[in-house]
Amino acid sequence: MASVPPLDGNAVLAPGAWHQQPVGVVGLGLIGGSLGLDLQRLGIGVRGLVHRAATAERARRRGLATQVSTDPSVLAPCALVVLALPLDGLLNPDPELLAALPPQAVITDVGSVKEPVLERWRALHPRFVASHPMAGNAEAGVEAGVAGLFRQRPWVATPEAGTDLAALGVVRNLAELVGARWLTCPARDHDQAVALISHLPVLVGAALLRAADSGMAPPHLVRQLASSGFADTTRVGGGNPLLGSLMARCNRDALLPALSAYRQQLGELEDLLQRADWTGLRRELESCHQLRPQFVGPSAPEETGVD
Amino acid sequence: MASVPPLDGNAVLAPGAWHQQPVGVVGLGLIGGSLGLDLQRLGIGVRGLVHRAATAERARRRGLATQVSTDPSVLAPCALVVLALPLDGLLNPDPELLAALPPQAVITDVGSVKEPVLERWRALHPRFVASHPMAGNAEAGVEAGVAGLFRQRPWVATPEAGTDLAALGVVRNLAELVGARWLTCPARDHDQAVALISHLPVLVGAALLRAADSGMAPPHLVRQLASSGFADTTRVGGGNPLLGSLMARCNRDALLPALSAYRQQLGELEDLLQRADWTGLRRELESCHQLRPQFVGPSAPEETGVD
Repeated sequence: MASVPPLDGNAVLAPGAWHQQPVGVVGLGLIGGSLGLDLQRLGIGVRGLVHRAATAERARRRGLATQVSTDPSVLAPCALVVLALPLDGLLNPDPELLAALPPQAVITDVGSVKEPVLERWRALHPRFVASHPMAGNAEAGVEAGVAGLFRQRPWVATPEAGTDLAALGVVRNLAELVGARWLTCPARDHDQAVALISHLPVLVGAALLRAADSGMAPPHLVRQLASSGFADTTRVGGGNPLLGSLMARCNRDALLPALSAYRQQLGELEDLLQRADWTGLRRELESCHQLRPQFVGPSAPEETGVD
Repeated sequence: MASVPPLDGNAVLAPGAWHQQPVGVVGLGLIGGSLGLDLQRLGIGVRGLVHRAATAERARRRGLATQVSTDPSVLAPCALVVLALPLDGLLNPDPELLAALPPQAVITDVGSVKEPVLERWRALHPRFVASHPMAGNAEAGVEAGVAGLFRQRPWVATPEAGTDLAALGVVRNLAELVGARWLTCPARDHDQAVALISHLPVLVGAALLRAADSGMAPPHLVRQLASSGFADTTRVGGGNPLLGSLMARCNRDALLPALSAYRQQLGELEDLLQRADWTGLRRELESCHQLRPQFVGPSAPEETGVD
């Protein structure tokens, strides 16, 4: 299997033939299930581990892994195991799972917060690599996995001084085989960045929903007039509440200063409005208009308006 | 022309055969141009008035009106004139335009803020009806108009004690002919509602862009990791700066209390985070998750996640 074709045509096989053994995937939700589909398309065997028998049966029917089991010993032959678990499962790992992880295998995770995961896992396994494929959330269940999910999406690893560099190379190889854009940074930088661009938007949008419902205008009217601008601004704020609170909990140390920074920025805009400084407000909105494409690429012309 | 077919199949012709004379449309941007296209499809003549000769020529090439002119006298035969102008044009109307508006004609506008428009216009014309078709912004230029823009979108009128009811009926008839959902409310209620659902999202998203760029995390990293959640939450915040500042200026009285309400709601969420009250935070996010479909309809399953 040395000729495994990468999904994006650019990946090079890493030292060590990890892909000649089945890859273990723990949890077959959106991330784990998608990974299982992609790996099998590449001709790589996948051992899926799930918690419940009913989930295992549904995963088998969807073909998410070559073999699906509720027994952790299914991971025994794997040289690479991906822990595609929600954050609470990563931070409080099942002792049976821990006992079943092969000591020589490379272990990585997919958690959206990295410092707490590293703190927990650096002592648990010598070949642990903290990583975060940024392609949706990990909780959408066994029906969610799709082929090609990682293509062109960032896959961030957060190595530290003690990280096994060969293990890091294996995870990079995995990421690039499924078409992801690989990058590395310190765990703290990752957590601060995702606090700003992923977790803060949840609270920002949630507060907007609450404000719209706060009774300042007739409730039926705000509901009738809300349109695409409001829908977009509140999409993640009205998203999965369990996931939102879990992320806030796991990334509290970065999210609190992000909220502070946000309050200050909003306060500066409010101050311009209070002082009726329309030139200043327009200048600030102009700078935001220039800033956004640096984060999300250029907008289509029809995307720039408000109703 | 008594058998004008409504675009949505439900409209009934209003008393008075306004549509047997050409309809005047002042400004042929997104709203005016779209209206011109729809009215002509219904067999109704359209007289378009624009400021510059070059614009007139482009509008003619696009067929946005039956007749396009830079001379206000083009409006002379109209029984209905729609002022499809940006807010500043409405609040400081051209004296030549005012002089050219037929005294017997029904006049309406499309401004996104209604109290200042009413204050200005109730003394300027006896048959003025303040209205707001909520279908994009009015500044996208003469290339922006499209047929069918108003279909299923709200068209709000804000009549007051002195409003001519026959004139109101004509505007309703116009709105329903182009397929819009007609509703009326007091101007103050309208302005408070749009402050919450349309103007506040601009500042909320703009502040998020500024916070993401505030240096709390490495600038290149936040740019690389920003994805669809950040893109959606900042779409209107990174939109047209001129339009955003104009709306803030014209709706300052409603937007300042909306900002206060927002700050309070955000503060309550931040307080839960500070106190590490994860049950409370999850409960509040759950209520937001329940709330959002009341405003924007149900989300597709893939819309509820965050990266």
